[in-house]
Amino acid sequence: MAKELDIAGMLEGYDKDKITIATVCSHSSLQIFDGARKEGFRTLGISVGERMKIYDAFPKAKPDEFLKVDGYSEILERTEELREKNVIVIPHGSFVEYLGADEFRKLALPTFGNRRVLKWESDRNKEREWLTSAGISMPEIVPNPEDINRPVLVKYHGAKGGRGFFIAKDYSDFKLGIDHTKEYHIQEYVMGTRYYLHYFFSPIKTEGYRTKNGVLELLSIDRRDESNIDEMYKLGSQEELKKMRVFPSFVVTGNIPVVIRESLLPKVFDMGERAVNRAYELFGGLYGSFCLETIVTDQLEFKVFEISSRIVAGTNPFISGSPYSDLMQEDLSTGRRIAQEIRLAVETEQLGRIIS
Amino acid sequence: MAKELDIAGMLEGYDKDKITIATVCSHSSLQIFDGARKEGFRTLGISVGERMKIYDAFPKAKPDEFLKVDGYSEILERTEELREKNVIVIPHGSFVEYLGADEFRKLALPTFGNRRVLKWESDRNKEREWLTSAGISMPEIVPNPEDINRPVLVKYHGAKGGRGFFIAKDYSDFKLGIDHTKEYHIQEYVMGTRYYLHYFFSPIKTEGYRTKNGVLELLSIDRRDESNIDEMYKLGSQEELKKMRVFPSFVVTGNIPVVIRESLLPKVFDMGERAVNRAYELFGGLYGSFCLETIVTDQLEFKVFEISSRIVAGTNPFISGSPYSDLMQEDLSTGRRIAQEIRLAVETEQLGRIIS
Amino acid sequence: MAKELDIAGMLEGYDKDKITIATVCSHSSLQIFDGARKEGFRTLGISVGERMKIYDAFPKAKPDEFLKVDGYSEILERTEELREKNVIVIPHGSFVEYLGADEFRKLALPTFGNRRVLKWESDRNKEREWLTSAGISMPEIVPNPEDINRPVLVKYHGAKGGRGFFIAKDYSDFKLGIDHTKEYHIQEYVMGTRYYLHYFFSPIKTEGYRTKNGVLELLSIDRRDESNIDEMYKLGSQEELKKMRVFPSFVVTGNIPVVIRESLLPKVFDMGERAVNRAYELFGGLYGSFCLETIVTDQLEFKVFEISSRIVAGTNPFISGSPYSDLMQEDLSTGRRIAQEIRLAVETEQLGRIIS
Repeated sequence: MAKELDIAGMLEGYDKDKITIATVCSHSSLQIFDGARKEGFRTLGISVGERMKIYDAFPKAKPDEFLKVDGYSEILERTEELREKNVIVIPHGSFVEYLGADEFRKLALPTFGNRRVLKWESDRNKEREWLTSAGISMPEIVPNPEDINRPVLVKYHGAKGGRGFFIAKDYSDFKLGIDHTKEYHIQEYVMGTRYYLHYFFSPIKTEGYRTKNGVLELLSIDRRDESNIDEMYKLGSQEELKKMRVFPSFVVTGNIPVVIRESLLPKVFDMGERAVNRAYELFGGLYGSFCLETIVTDQLEFKVFEISSRIVAGTNPFISGSPYSDLMQEDLSTGRRIAQEIRLAVETEQLGRIIS
Repeated sequence: MAKELDIAGMLEGYDKDKITIATVCSHSSLQIFDGARKEGFRTLGISVGERMKIYDAFPKAKPDEFLKVDGYSEILERTEELREKNVIVIPHGSFVEYLGADEFRKLALPTFGNRRVLKWESDRNKEREWLTSAGISMPEIVPNPEDINRPVLVKYHGAKGGRGFFIAKDYSDFKLGIDHTKEYHIQEYVMGTRYYLHYFFSPIKTEGYRTKNGVLELLSIDRRDESNIDEMYKLGSQEELKKMRVFPSFVVTGNIPVVIRESLLPKVFDMGERAVNRAYELFGGLYGSFCLETIVTDQLEFKVFEISSRIVAGTNPFISGSPYSDLMQEDLSTGRRIAQEIRLAVETEQLGRIIS
Repeated sequence: MAKELDIAGMLEGYDKDKITIATVCSHSSLQIFDGARKEGFRTLGISVGERMKIYDAFPKAKPDEFLKVDGYSEILERTEELREKNVIVIPHGSFVEYLGADEFRKLALPTFGNRRVLKWESDRNKEREWLTSAGISMPEIVPNPEDINRPVLVKYHGAKGGRGFFIAKDYSDFKLGIDHTKEYHIQEYVMGTRYYLHYFFSPIKTEGYRTKNGVLELLSIDRRDESNIDEMYKLGSQEELKKMRVFPSFVVTGNIPVVIRESLLPKVFDMGERAVNRAYELFGGLYGSFCLETIVTDQLEFKVFEISSRIVAGTNPFISGSPYSDLMQEDLSTGRRIAQEIRLAVETEQLGRIIS
């Protein structure tokens, strides 16, 4: 951070009995508002443009009030107003992406989770350093495009929702597809089935799956729908489609619920624990929701291709619980779990440990 | 309608405290009976042939009584008997399809929803007129098969559950696949992911997402399973399979639950509102359940390829609620929502506005 | 069985008020423990190696106690200890597979379900004899690999979770793929969509879908995720991938929830009934959970490619109910249904009819 934010000072000034949970009206906001209300919090929706009407259709998820802004940057200017309402912000993917990581880091509001993770998460090299040094297996990197000798996935840095990713099988594919104006990154294309593992890490809870720095939970698992890759096979082979200049794209459009083979759960927890432990060593921790985006190979090995260090939209199918969270507590979404964590932190005067 | 039915007169003769909700035993009947019972209605299952036994396995969805008929046309002859039981019929896809749209229009029983929609829905040209004049984007039409210069889907009019649809990439594909004895329709094959949006429109409810003529709801979203297109890729490319004379088919066999990217919800509601508003202008309204069958492209644009103006089988995964209806009320299926609407209409003496 | 086990004698010695439900910690154990607890049973987890920690993350599914063993065979040596705890074992796929069918048959503990089914289930020829003589349609067998003239699936006997299966379109494919050191079996590759039907059969319940020997239920339906076949199409056609020496594999990694077209339910119950009726004729019955693994063709016909005669992992998405079990009773998983059956048998002194 350019200038250190005085989050502790802000929290000190807060009326802890009147905390308002706020987020931007998109991504997983229905779940966040619904969960916050279930735990007795006031809610505030930050609406960029006219997006408020849909909440009329979902009364349980309708925030108590809206703050309407014309653009994301306006949020930065209105933090005082929000602090007066004792706002704690729940960041989600769209929030961080559209505000921009740099601006988000400067946001003068208490936010759920550790903002220092952004530096490690938004840079694919640092993300890899974090996860591989934690002992987590990732798809291999191909540093030089001329060395592509098996299927690879070319990803652009900071690409929004998978836009622009492409598959290459050799250097000529690469040359055909690459946009040299963007920073890219070439990784081995791992064959298998995808599981997006939705974890929650609490540094303040004491019961459960205990690790060095707190308690690790698995709340749900989804698989992303991606347009057009998911259904393009219906039209013909990729080779044939290429001739018609139809290329695969990887834009997230939705999510389906899945469960994973039960015998893989020890590995699931082990990976989550490694990511968290290493985060505490490197940058003060990973707390709250996070997601490991994985592929399970036919050798039943995990390859983690990405980490998201906040609530992911893949939790949206589980607004009333999942086959995993149902084994912890009825009707427990990730949104509600976040609100519970804030509630527990307020009650035990540990807000500083889960807010940054 | 050849002869105008006196639905208002029928309803006048009804004992409103003893309404029976009836439907044909198939499609989404388990959900309809379960929902009706939850709202305190008597239920009657019209069984064509011996289909009653399965209800023994699902006690909550077992109708209070059965009317066994030998064929769909027998229903038309037994309407007096049904009216004596104060029956309101909930039409579903199989009901309308097997009875036939013409016969269904003549059915001398109060039915949920607007029967006048049938004329607009069963003719692909009028359906397109309705939706496009409402400002809803649909896949483009290719009027002349000789002009096929990109992938298209050839659909037969009134095809049952997708049977006989085929993909063509050029005129020679078309000639190979076409059955000239049937009326067909050629539309652009849109690449993307499919979302079947389950709406409910109430002209009598006052709270919620208000539109010109009432309140619009989104109850759930599914994706259809289609045999054999969904899994044929496992066997080889379409080009290769064609050589073995294996062709894709699109017969609906089931449904999976999905959620859509939250930032698309404003568009979802906008499309639903447009369809309903235009229906009121064109033919007196679209009320009760309906479904827009959509594709989301990698530009995050919707293309609507069909509308179903009644309960769809895609609501069946959500017999105890969905990630959307859970934000309105616990344990709310489309079947139950239908029963609630009838209950509200009875209580407020507005049955005439939701029955035709 | 080499030596007849005296299960009746064991049960006689049991304290029926202190029955403990036990299973091996894997596969569907979370569901089994959760379900047993909901019905008021004590629970015991048999942990092979260090797998116990994950249960800390799922408190509702954490067994009351663990029995830690170093390998599956150690279970056989510790049956006395388990009998002293009035243990009834719930076998699942991993339990039977890793212990070995022969050893499982000799296990000197009361186990849920009919162990005599194993002889019929683990031998693909006997399995086929059972199902086809019951009037259930299966994919056709190709006895001679030289006769392969359409797509076939080559399966190895006793293959674990689909490992090593392959598709062949002709004899040369077969020769390329086959491992002659294993027993194999060639069957027609049926095109369609897969539905794994989770049944429960009770010889002691009296209400419901009654058959000759008891009551048949349908609790849920899933589709298996298989690595790498499910997502390999994203990389290119099978023909192209073959050139890169990338071959499809069929290793189960997870499950997704599905529902089936309602009009197929009468066939679903008919097939289940046939399998059970024939099992009573051939080997004393099929009771408790079982699963027919089916493909639905575009003619809406079922082909059953396998039967599993115990709880399958495909029930795991439904730990709090399914669109089918919700129509019987709230919050009813297969694991809970098993516990209910044991409870009913205890109360009516019929344990001998559901235990072997």
